[in-house]
Parts: sequence; C-alpha cells; structure tokens
Amino acid sequence: MLKGIPVSAGISIAPVLRLTHETAIAQAESTTPVDTTQELGLLSKSVEQAREQLEKLKEQTEEQLGSEKAAILSAHIAFLDDPAFVGEMNALIENQQLAASAAVSQVADQFIALFESMDDAYMKERADDIRDVSRRLIRNISGGDTVISYPEEPFILVAWDVTPSETLQLPLQHVRGIVTAKGGATSHAAILARSLGIPAVMGAGDTLMEKVDSGNLLIIDGTSGQLIVSPDADTLAAYQEKAAQEEKERQMYEAIKELPAETTDGHRVHLMANMAVPEESDALVASGVEGIGLFRSEFLFMDRSTLPDEDEQFAAYKHVAAAFGDKPVIIRTLDVGGDKHLPALALPQEENPFLGFRAMRISLARPELFLVQLRALLRASAFGRLLIMFPMISHLEQLREAKRLLEQAKAELRAEGIAFDEKIAVGMMMEIPGACLQADAFAKEVDFFSIGTNDLVQYTLAVDRMNANIAELYSYYHPAVLRLISQVIQASHRAGIWTGLCGEMAGDPLATKLLLGLGLDEFSGAASVMPKVKERIRSTSVEEAKQLAEHVLTLSTVYEVVQYLKDKAL
Amino acid sequence: MLKGIPVSAGISIAPVLRLTHETAIAQAESTTPVDTTQELGLLSKSVEQAREQLEKLKEQTEEQLGSEKAAILSAHIAFLDDPAFVGEMNALIENQQLAASAAVSQVADQFIALFESMDDAYMKERADDIRDVSRRLIRNISGGDTVISYPEEPFILVAWDVTPSETLQLPLQHVRGIVTAKGGATSHAAILARSLGIPAVMGAGDTLMEKVDSGNLLIIDGTSGQLIVSPDADTLAAYQEKAAQEEKERQMYEAIKELPAETTDGHRVHLMANMAVPEESDALVASGVEGIGLFRSEFLFMDRSTLPDEDEQFAAYKHVAAAFGDKPVIIRTLDVGGDKHLPALALPQEENPFLGFRAMRISLARPELFLVQLRALLRASAFGRLLIMFPMISHLEQLREAKRLLEQAKAELRAEGIAFDEKIAVGMMMEIPGACLQADAFAKEVDFFSIGTNDLVQYTLAVDRMNANIAELYSYYHPAVLRLISQVIQASHRAGIWTGLCGEMAGDPLATKLLLGLGLDEFSGAASVMPKVKERIRSTSVEEAKQLAEHVLTLSTVYEVVQYLKDKAL
Repeated sequence: MLKGIPVSAGISIAPVLRLTHETAIAQAESTTPVDTTQELGLLSKSVEQAREQLEKLKEQTEEQLGSEKAAILSAHIAFLDDPAFVGEMNALIENQQLAASAAVSQVADQFIALFESMDDAYMKERADDIRDVSRRLIRNISGGDTVISYPEEPFILVAWDVTPSETLQLPLQHVRGIVTAKGGATSHAAILARSLGIPAVMGAGDTLMEKVDSGNLLIIDGTSGQLIVSPDADTLAAYQEKAAQEEKERQMYEAIKELPAETTDGHRVHLMANMAVPEESDALVASGVEGIGLFRSEFLFMDRSTLPDEDEQFAAYKHVAAAFGDKPVIIRTLDVGGDKHLPALALPQEENPFLGFRAMRISLARPELFLVQLRALLRASAFGRLLIMFPMISHLEQLREAKRLLEQAKAELRAEGIAFDEKIAVGMMMEIPGACLQADAFAKEVDFFSIGTNDLVQYTLAVDRMNANIAELYSYYHPAVLRLISQVIQASHRAGIWTGLCGEMAGDPLATKLLLGLGLDEFSGAASVMPKVKERIRSTSVEEAKQLAEHVLTLSTVYEVVQYLKDKAL
Repeated sequence: MLKGIPVSAGISIAPVLRLTHETAIAQAESTTPVDTTQELGLLSKSVEQAREQLEKLKEQTEEQLGSEKAAILSAHIAFLDDPAFVGEMNALIENQQLAASAAVSQVADQFIALFESMDDAYMKERADDIRDVSRRLIRNISGGDTVISYPEEPFILVAWDVTPSETLQLPLQHVRGIVTAKGGATSHAAILARSLGIPAVMGAGDTLMEKVDSGNLLIIDGTSGQLIVSPDADTLAAYQEKAAQEEKERQMYEAIKELPAETTDGHRVHLMANMAVPEESDALVASGVEGIGLFRSEFLFMDRSTLPDEDEQFAAYKHVAAAFGDKPVIIRTLDVGGDKHLPALALPQEENPFLGFRAMRISLARPELFLVQLRALLRASAFGRLLIMFPMISHLEQLREAKRLLEQAKAELRAEGIAFDEKIAVGMMMEIPGACLQADAFAKEVDFFSIGTNDLVQYTLAVDRMNANIAELYSYYHPAVLRLISQVIQASHRAGIWTGLCGEMAGDPLATKLLLGLGLDEFSGAASVMPKVKERIRSTSVEEAKQLAEHVLTLSTVYEVVQYLKDKAL
C-alpha cells in the first residue's frame, strides 16, 4: 500500500498506464564539437514547432474546457518569446558550442532550480511549466513524438510527474485517475484534475515507479491519498462498493445542484466556494456554487518577484467578477506573512510568524501598496458583484483606518471619473479571538463578518495547526471555539448584518447542522465538498438544528461534542 | 546621555568611582619555561587563600545579609573543589609548563565560553561566578590586593562588570548606585542590588567606560535605565526633585507596609509577589508581601544540563515553603518551551514556539518527568503552605489528566508513608483564550485561577509580545482582554473559588482600580511595584472601583480605556 497527497477526490479502479519519462530534463550534452549554425537552426525550428503545437492545443482546450484552462498554454507560449529563456539557449549554443538539446536542458535546469528554490509552494510549482515547455522543445529537436498514444480503454496514469499540457492532452473518456511520484495540491495538473473531476493522488514518492507497472490493477482514493496495487478480491470488492456509493452520492448531489440550500422548514442559507487561483473560476461557476466566499488575493502576488501594479490587479479582479456575473465574489485583501512569504515585500524573519507582522498589519504599515489594491478592487467592482473583506483585524482602530483608506481610494476614483460600485459591501474576517469577543462593536462598522476558523482555532487554543507535536489539541469542535462562533453570529444579527464562515469547518458535513443551528448565514468551503453540505441542509429543519446547537453549547469537551454530533447524524 | 538595562529601581545622584579592571581574565601567559613545581605551589597557595577569603566573606554576608546571599559564596567555594576546574589548571601547569596565572586564565576562559554559549540567560550569567573566582585566584597568585579601597563618602560605582563577591564587599553606607558596561537583569549582582535596594543599571555598553570618569557627577535612573553624566543645573534640579518624590513615596509605602490591602470600605484583597529564583526568598519575605503568587519552577531546571531529580527539587521547594512559613507559595509546574529552552529535554525546533509544544503539553507527554515534580511538590507541602498551579491548559481533558497524575503521586507517597499536605490546593493559569471562554467548566474542577495576562494578550490579539514590528498592538487594556478577565473572575466566584492575576498587569498601578472593580481577589507582580498597588487599593472604595470597571467594559478601544483610567486617576 502506497500513499500520496490527495489532490482530487474520488475512487477509481483501473489498470495502470505507466509513463517512465524522467522528471529531470534529459541531460543531452554532446561531447563532440557541434556545428553552431546547424544547432541554432534546430533550436529555432523546434521553437516554431512548439509554438504551433501549443497554439493548436490551446484552441482545442478553449473549445472543450474553456478559456481558463487555455490560459495555462498561453503562459507556455509566452516562455517561447522570453529572451531570458530562448535567447539564453541561443547564447549557449553560440558561445559554448553546445548542442541545441543540451542548451535547452541547461537553461531549463537553471530556471527550474530558481523556481524550486523559492519559498512558497505556488512558485515552486511554476517549475512544472518550464519542465513542460522544455521537454516539448527537446522532443521536437530529437524528432521524437510529442503526442503520447493512450489506450482505447479505461486506465489510470502513473508517472514521475504530469505536466499541464500532458494533462490537457489526456483522453477524458478513458482516463480514470492520475498518480504521480512528484507534485502537490497546488500544481496546475492538480487544479486541472480537480476541475475535470479526475481522481488524483500526487507526491506519492520515488518508490511509486518501482512498485507499480503498466497493466497492474490499481485502486486510488483521491480523498485519502491511498493507493492499492493489485488488490486482493476482498479489498477490491470493498472499494468497488465504496466507488458505487460515491457514484450514487454524486448523482444525488447532481440532482440537487440547481436547488437552493434551504432547510425543510424553509430557512435559506448560502453556499459559496473558496477560490485560490483565478484559473478555477470557470469550473466553480459550472459547479453551481452561489458565489465566491473567499478569493485569496495573495495568490496574485506570489507568482512573481515584483508586486503587481494597479492595472494588473484590476484585470485579475475584473476577470473573476465578470466570470461570476451577478453572483457575489468576496475578495480578501492581501493576507501574507505567517506561513506565506512574499519575496517582493522583504518581510522580516520572525520567532512566531503566526503571531507576527502579517495581513492587514502589513497593509496598514504600507498604505501606498494597500491603496493600489483598493483602487484595483474598486475599479473591478464596476464589472460584477464584488465585496471587499479585510483579514487579521484585532483592533477597532485597524478597521477604521482600513475603511478610511478605502474612502480615500473612492474619492480618488471619483475625482478621476472612474466608475466603481458606490455601494460596495465591506466585511472583515473574524479570525482573532479579540475581534470575536468584541463582535458587537465591529458589527456596527461593517456589512458582514466571515469567520476564519483555521486561524481562530490556532489563536483560541494557542495551537499551531502545522505543529505535529500538538495536532490532537487542534479542533474547531472545542467548546470555546463554538462559543466564539455563536457570539459572533448573534452580535451580527443584532446589528442586522450577516455572518459567513470560510474555514475548513464550512465544508465539514458533520458541522453543518450545528453551524445552521448557531445561525450561520453563509458557508464557504472547497467547491467539491459543498454538495454534501447542501444535502445536509436540505434534510434538516432549522428548528431541529437550533435545538442541537443549544445542546452542543452546554458540552465541555471536544470528545463530547464530536460524539453527540455523530450520534445525531446517524 | 547613556542608557542601559534597568535592573534595580530608584534614582541616585552622586560622584562616580570608576573601576577599570577588565572583563576578560588578564592574559598572564608566560613566554619563558616555568618551574613547574613552583607554579603548582603558587596555584595551591592561591586556592587556599581564596578559600579563606571566601569563607570569611561568607560569614560576614550571612551575618549582615542572610543565608540566601551567602549561598552565592558557597557556590564560589564549590568551584575551588571541582576537579574539572582547579584539577585542569594543575594539569596545564604540569603538561604544558604554563605559569599558574596563565593556567587559571586558560581554564576560566574555557568555562566562561561554555556558559556564555548556552541559550538561556540564567546559564549565561553563571559565567560571572567563574570570572569572579578566577580573578580572585589570579590576584592571589600575583600577590595583588583582593580588597578594593572605597571612598568614605557617597559614590556610584561604574565598572566593566561587577562580580557577586565585589557586590557583597561594597560599603552599603556609601554606595548609591551600580552601573556596569556588561551584565543584565538576571545576574547575581543584579539580584543582590535589588535586594539591597541599590539603584542599578547594567549592560550600558562599552562606551560607558569612555564617557564616564571618576569624580564626574552622575544621575542614574534604575527604573528607566537612563544615565546622565555631568548634568546641567536644570536637569540636576529636576532629578533631585524626582528623587525626593521617590523618597517620599518610599516612606509612604513603608508606612503602609504592615497594613492590609484593603479598600476604604473594607474589601480585602491579597498582594503577592512573583519569584524567579529561590535566592530572592529572604528579600521577598522581608518586603512584606503576603506570599508568592507565582514561583516559576522552570528556573530550577535551567541552571544545568541534566534534569534535577526528586530530592533536589524537593529541597528547593521545601526551602521556599519553609522560608514563607504560613504564607502561601504558589508553585507553577514546569513551563518550558516557547521562548524558554531546556537542553536536557531536547525540545523540537518549531515554526511558532508560542503556539507549540510547551508547559503542560510537555508535562503530559512526559508523565514520568511530571510525576517526579509532583512528588517533590507534595513532599515539600508538608513544610509550609504550598499551592500547585498548572500552566498552559486549554482543554478540560488536560486538567483532568494532570489531576489524575497528582492523585497517583499522592497515592504513591501515602503507600510509602511520606507526609504531605492532604488538602493541598490545585489551581490553573488562565492564559489561553479557550480556557477563559470555558472558565465555568474549569472552575468546577480547580481551587483557584491565576490569570496570566502576558500570554493571554498574545493569544487573544495574535500578537507576539517580543515582536517589535507589532508592539503597538500588544496591550492588556484591549477591550477583549478585559472582557475575558471579567468572565474568568465571574465564573470563579459563581463556583466559589478565587482568581488571581500574575502578569505584568498586576503590578501596573493604572490597572489596580479596574482589576479591583472586576472582582480580582489576588494581585501578584514584582515585589518592588506592589507597594504602589497597595496604596492604590487603600485609597479607593470597592464600590467606586466597580463603577469604574463597569464603564470601562463599555469602551471599545485601548485608547479609550487608557484615557479613561488616566482621567479617573487624576
């Protein structure tokens, strides 16, 4: 039994197709002196071929999967035009008499090393794009086949890694799953697998390729990350039943996809999705969510060594706003620091980064940067239904200062005659105990709250959720956390505003009825889990949920809460 | 104007006596071959002289300052018996033909480097003891004077550093202050200065010795750390008035020293002191505090590379318990991790140590170590009035498990026929928001609470108090913190138990009336600030304090709270 990182949910059972191409770009160094002119010609021809291949693939992708997916290929094409990339290959051939493929290999390795040395996961994953384009160039140079021939029957792809363009070329009618030795949840391939609904497990480690061969029957569980090679009859039967059950659930969720998130006694709540990268917009619109409960704007900032200017930010926010039309999109202002580094900001090293200089604390210390984001958000608000949300606020003065800067940005735009939504809603994350305890005061000065349980649990219980030594202490079912959630919701309703929740708890079906009973108005989680949440909401009455919540608030340990919820779920 | 670390409060104005001996042990290496036998004899004679000098000084110290202070000299004498110390010097003379003074210098440097390389401040300061003994040995070898002749009139001592034995030899009738270039608040010299009531500023930096000369008039402010050399007439007059004011206050506090901490309308609270090291016991007993509100047991563990066994811990706890007689001494079980490292435990490196594996979390993960401490505490409870306090509890299960282990230790002692206080009180720190929010449940299972505002503020506001980038966000006057304090006190009173507070807030006179009004039963801070707190309590009525607290709880920013308290204090 092997295990990897679960990146796309679902169970699949199918024979393996094992691709053995290497992760590293083949070291195609020539030892004999080369004919420089000939090699320059080879490279140039290969680049042109690559451009044609990518343009064609982009066209197909746009047709079949939409413009978001096709944008990945535009990024690849852009690399071909980058003088630091192809230009450097030319220089190596001329100055060091390298063969064309060796030049590609060397430049690619430099770029890959650079990206992989970066601190944040998103940048690391960009090495995949370089790998993808470079492999294509080398294949073209060597006259190799750039198209893999896939079987005409169901299969699970097993490989060292899968590049984005390889994922886009998979035959959707036959591929049942993707398993890779490398990679992780934020790679383009992972995002694609999720939006294509292909179960996938990545980062299974180097032993994967030793233990699995083409033709082996493989079970993959894209929810747990578990992989079972050549299962015995009992295991196979058990997973077949599990898969059938999942399929039944999928059909049930599909059936309620267009129905509202409404209790049996007519209480309506709203189910939204969290979104990390704009590339997910299309898939999320298609999934039937009612809008975006949390768009993490920091991902726009992390894919680069410089900060995006106002126009770039505007374009990104506008794109998302427009994609969702009249559905609400809540964009959270920059939330970096903590475990998210931003090279362009040169943030200080800290002893306790989760208790440090992060999110709104940085924005207020650097108002010139914050105003750029606020102006871009306001301009985008003219093209859809945007809401602005401030993270990591603990002091009323911070909220007031952030709102003052927003008013300043509005005044500037008005003076410049630039359109924006004059009635744009402004909310704040409730993720610091101090803010939750003062929810009554904050509720008078915002349009909505969104409880961020991931951070709130950390601070309320003094438990770093990344710290394995104390993992058993981390739980959003701790009575103190539940009391804070209850206090925040009640304070918001007294002030006539609404409260959402955008931590993992929002997507946990065991918590749905409890949150409903506590009065939560909006749930925002991973789009893949929201159908289950909707099913839970549609199968209970709000009165029943309130009674359950009232009882849970009298319990005094995590164990008691979880047991009670499980008993009631039966 | 110079600045150093304020280590002993008070203002002094007097001419300087500048001692210029070097911090480093003189490099007395001989270049000519030595007569080994003669050098061995010199060393041996010097060690015997040192022993006699130290015994005599110890006797004098015991008489004039008590046994706690004299214990420092016992530690020096113990070094003379340590084979790793004097034995190593003998070996260097024999094997490397070093002169006696060079051998002392070399061994001392090794020990000093070792102690100074250690992570915790307490161990670093132990280098002072080595420096002290070694200087004495070298002076004896060279036939130098081991007694400094001090002026027969008031002076402020200015030196690179001051060793403990030098501090003990200061003429108390003339010395008005101590200022050093090196050193810090936890050095023996600093502890001595505090308990002798001599204003002191240490760690003023290397420029101190360039800028100050014997005979200069010097103002030192042991509260702020400020030093003013040769002040102008206005500054001098201002500080003279400040010093007079301090003296007046001191006399006022002295006058109420024996009076209870009671409001004008007869409401009685209890003023206790925090204690870091057992050496402070005598001074604290003499200061008139009603007991120890927080004895940090971790300091017993930090002065060493191995863990203290049960008998050693017992001896230390018993010593403190006996010193205070029938006055209560609250001993907190081991609180390491966070910013306090313990080499013997090999704790993991953590991303966010304040949110990590620390205090009770470690004790419960290592019950075999925790039981040793519990047994030692119980045994000591037979010799005074000990209370046990558990730190960093966030989950009810943790409290229950800690109490179960305490019962197990009791059962063992009963079976072994060892005496302990069968009615020993057990309390817990309230320093995690999650525990405070569940105070009602915890109150049913302990005998008392002690609010630890230092950590509580950190977690409630998600602000590392050591992080200079966000220092302005850290305040115990944040409305959310005040609400938690209020909730904890009210929950404790409903359950019929009492609540203390042992963070810095307890010693802040601006907070006294507010805490009194919130219902706090016990205040525990630095002994030096408690007289002011008593004066505040004795000059208000509890009814007035309650009204003040009620109003403060309606305020919504730190600024409003502080302004209101300042207005009311006028």
